[in-house]
Amino acid sequence: MNPQKSSLMSVERVLIDGKWRVSSGSQIFQSVNPATRLPLPREYPVSPWAEVEQAILAAARASRAVRDVPGEVFAKFLERFAERIDARSGEFIATANQETGLPVEPRLKIAELPRTTNQLRQAAAAARDGGWSLPTIDTKTNIRSRLAAIGPVVVFGPNNFPYAFNSAAGGDFAAAVAAGNPVIAKGHSSHPSTTRLFAEEAFEAARETGLPPAFVQLIYRTSHEDGCRLVSHPAIGAIGYTGARATGLVLKEAADRVGKPIYLELSSINPICVLPGVLEERSDELAAEFSTSCLMGTGQFCTNPGMVLLLAGPQTESFVNAVRAKFESAPIGTMLSEGVLRNFESSIQALVAAGAEVLTGGQTGGGNGFSFRNTLLKVTGEKFLLSPHALQTEAFGNSSLFVIAKDEAQMLAVLDALEGNLTGAIYSAKDGQDDTLYSRIEPALRVRVGRLINDKMPTGVAVSPAMNHGGPFPATGHPGFTAVGIPASMRRFAMLQCYDSVRQHRLPPELQDKNPRPGLWRSIDGQWSQADVG
Amino acid sequence: MNPQKSSLMSVERVLIDGKWRVSSGSQIFQSVNPATRLPLPREYPVSPWAEVEQAILAAARASRAVRDVPGEVFAKFLERFAERIDARSGEFIATANQETGLPVEPRLKIAELPRTTNQLRQAAAAARDGGWSLPTIDTKTNIRSRLAAIGPVVVFGPNNFPYAFNSAAGGDFAAAVAAGNPVIAKGHSSHPSTTRLFAEEAFEAARETGLPPAFVQLIYRTSHEDGCRLVSHPAIGAIGYTGARATGLVLKEAADRVGKPIYLELSSINPICVLPGVLEERSDELAAEFSTSCLMGTGQFCTNPGMVLLLAGPQTESFVNAVRAKFESAPIGTMLSEGVLRNFESSIQALVAAGAEVLTGGQTGGGNGFSFRNTLLKVTGEKFLLSPHALQTEAFGNSSLFVIAKDEAQMLAVLDALEGNLTGAIYSAKDGQDDTLYSRIEPALRVRVGRLINDKMPTGVAVSPAMNHGGPFPATGHPGFTAVGIPASMRRFAMLQCYDSVRQHRLPPELQDKNPRPGLWRSIDGQWSQADVG
Repeated sequence: MNPQKSSLMSVERVLIDGKWRVSSGSQIFQSVNPATRLPLPREYPVSPWAEVEQAILAAARASRAVRDVPGEVFAKFLERFAERIDARSGEFIATANQETGLPVEPRLKIAELPRTTNQLRQAAAAARDGGWSLPTIDTKTNIRSRLAAIGPVVVFGPNNFPYAFNSAAGGDFAAAVAAGNPVIAKGHSSHPSTTRLFAEEAFEAARETGLPPAFVQLIYRTSHEDGCRLVSHPAIGAIGYTGARATGLVLKEAADRVGKPIYLELSSINPICVLPGVLEERSDELAAEFSTSCLMGTGQFCTNPGMVLLLAGPQTESFVNAVRAKFESAPIGTMLSEGVLRNFESSIQALVAAGAEVLTGGQTGGGNGFSFRNTLLKVTGEKFLLSPHALQTEAFGNSSLFVIAKDEAQMLAVLDALEGNLTGAIYSAKDGQDDTLYSRIEPALRVRVGRLINDKMPTGVAVSPAMNHGGPFPATGHPGFTAVGIPASMRRFAMLQCYDSVRQHRLPPELQDKNPRPGLWRSIDGQWSQADVG
Repeated sequence: MNPQKSSLMSVERVLIDGKWRVSSGSQIFQSVNPATRLPLPREYPVSPWAEVEQAILAAARASRAVRDVPGEVFAKFLERFAERIDARSGEFIATANQETGLPVEPRLKIAELPRTTNQLRQAAAAARDGGWSLPTIDTKTNIRSRLAAIGPVVVFGPNNFPYAFNSAAGGDFAAAVAAGNPVIAKGHSSHPSTTRLFAEEAFEAARETGLPPAFVQLIYRTSHEDGCRLVSHPAIGAIGYTGARATGLVLKEAADRVGKPIYLELSSINPICVLPGVLEERSDELAAEFSTSCLMGTGQFCTNPGMVLLLAGPQTESFVNAVRAKFESAPIGTMLSEGVLRNFESSIQALVAAGAEVLTGGQTGGGNGFSFRNTLLKVTGEKFLLSPHALQTEAFGNSSLFVIAKDEAQMLAVLDALEGNLTGAIYSAKDGQDDTLYSRIEPALRVRVGRLINDKMPTGVAVSPAMNHGGPFPATGHPGFTAVGIPASMRRFAMLQCYDSVRQHRLPPELQDKNPRPGLWRSIDGQWSQADVG
């Protein structure tokens, strides 16, 4: 995957300013099939700065051109894009399977691709409706405001969801477009062909629906330095980034310095607290549920349950043993790439160095291609509290760490030592016996996670208007926003535009006295209403 | 105002962890009466880090203690606080007049103090209602979310609004408290006595309404280094800062590095575009309106019109001359402090060095105490475009810069070169003759300002639910938020809390099936509703 000098006629083209162009860059890279560890045949360019800048300037022009385009047009684009993806699903599935090693069924075909087109269709409905922009009218002062497109959005997609978080089709893309913004997609280097397919279909869908040709652009890779220049360019509106923490923080620093909103989804260990009554009621059921959730997708989910907090005792020992047995008998999956495997190895080493004991696994191999044995680790509450930072190292893969607290006070101390996470779950007895302990620990967990869950594993992230796929730093860069869930996720890619005493005919339709659409909700003098003003 | 060694028994106390304490610091400062240029008698401490840290830890405890406190209690606190301020208004007015030189009437007594207590009462109503938190319920998935208190908020107040933006009573304070957060107020060094009076009343109001004694705390001054440690402390939830750009950016960097939301209101030149038809219709009227707006409060408003963009021609020359005559005959006000005067002098020098010509004023003196002559500057569009950055230097005071474009294309180029601003106004003819030009320039201005205004000066900032007192960087740090306007300003001090499959009795009342208050609006399955679920 490291860039090489290009030969070459065969290098894939970048999509810039409405054209699939031969890149002016001289470096190339290839993706690798993680199941065979062999490079895939297509070569992809590393774009030099001049090319990145062309994309930025073209996006800025596209942003101006679509300024008065109604939400209906973005909706049609998103729907047409979804239809085109569906029509080419066979190729999408084969390509992503080759590039990621994720199984065709159920993962790619039954779960992730339908989720992705569903997400595009939900975004379309929200763009058409317009209520996402929270139109607010104060008749007494004749001041009106709404959220509106922020300008070109750069999306950096992660390695682990080739569809649902793809930079050219996933959640950030859908949210940015539905809010009216052109997107510059920066594909993840591990699945460039999948990303190229999306960009091809998005490009055609934009053409069919009359959006400017530069509305969607694609570059595959840049230098780190050019990545920082990209996110801090004056013409950029905002950035969505899902991926590794170190890279994300470098981009964040560059964007923050010039006041560009950057939304990060970085890392999370998703603690699960198992209260004692549950182990009395349904220990075996929970062991199965946990093992399935933790090993699904070879554990390569940002919501993977990476830490389980339990109270010491014989029932906890039985539970831990039951999970260990399941981890030992479960198949060992293929990891997304050599890089993921190497990071996983060093994270497990860091946890062990900090005092965690390996219960099972802990070694590379055992499966096809890039693989690592299903791994369980254990540490006491005392040890955790001695090295809370190191013992919260995210091990991105098929592993989890049991933290065994000696009593409730120590359980609470462990929770108080947690960093920000996307999710936190509490399993408690159905008969109410854990309710007192629940109410003691819930406040500590609540403020450290974006989504608090009862009696359910965190791995599923429903595309719901009430979802929060976000949370306090370092899980994300701002605890007020979510990356999943329409329409809330759209509000990240918007600026607040206020109109003070602006003449009626100059107002955007959503802020004029007459409600432009029968179903549109607006806040008029502090009350939500679907009526006209006055 | 520079810190000196303390003597001393007489130094004022800091409010930390529910007690008015003798500061452990050895440095002191005094405020200065800007009208007499003489130090005021009271001495105030510079708090050392240990003291700041005590405040942070006490605020964290207070934050945990108020977690389940209903909005009604914060409402009662805010209302009781407003009543107590009203009851002591004579002392507030005399003190702020001494510390700021702002006139008692109309400014302090008729305008700013009533605005401040009104703002506290609006925040109380929003806290009581609870709709600010956007409760969102998805019945299909049983996922529910709302915004909730983010944790202790540090508020840095500016020099120019001793009441309405005061760190212990102003807009950020009201918004943070109404959202359920304890506040650590960092008073502005130019009006510590005014801030102390607010903290005294807030402390008593908290006691009367049963909030924890550390709910409101006050420190007067810290070292710059300790300011950075304060905003980046793990126990802090968020920061509100209004003030000078350089200091704000240093704090922003410290907060950003650890993912703490920091909301800045930094600087703005508030461009006003005057289209040709207006000068035909009402040139004299506009000259009077502009001069009044620009010289009010000696121009020391963040929404002061610091730049006027016009098309070259004889009518523009007459208009400029009319404004010049008004500036020359208007009284010269007193500036807030020696520091403000020195910054103003150097900003005017920077504008002149960049090519601006002084039409009138341009020199220190002419009024009581710290003063500078009412100043008008002029520059051509050509020159502006040669040094757009330097010619956007904010001159915080009684001045404005006319930018004379040779034609419409140059006017548009000037607008395209603007940085982010809080406001932008367009004056156009009532008879429609300017409408074509309006529609050409509006898009460029729209994306560069938070509030777009027609035919009105920007200086008034109504406390309206639709207000945006915010805008793109460098006017603020994030274009999606407003510092003024309840309830939107409260959403800055909140985290998104999602509940996934959480049992009914464990949900906050706003997210339970039964609507806890008849008037509360909630989004249920995508529709705003005041009903119960189901």
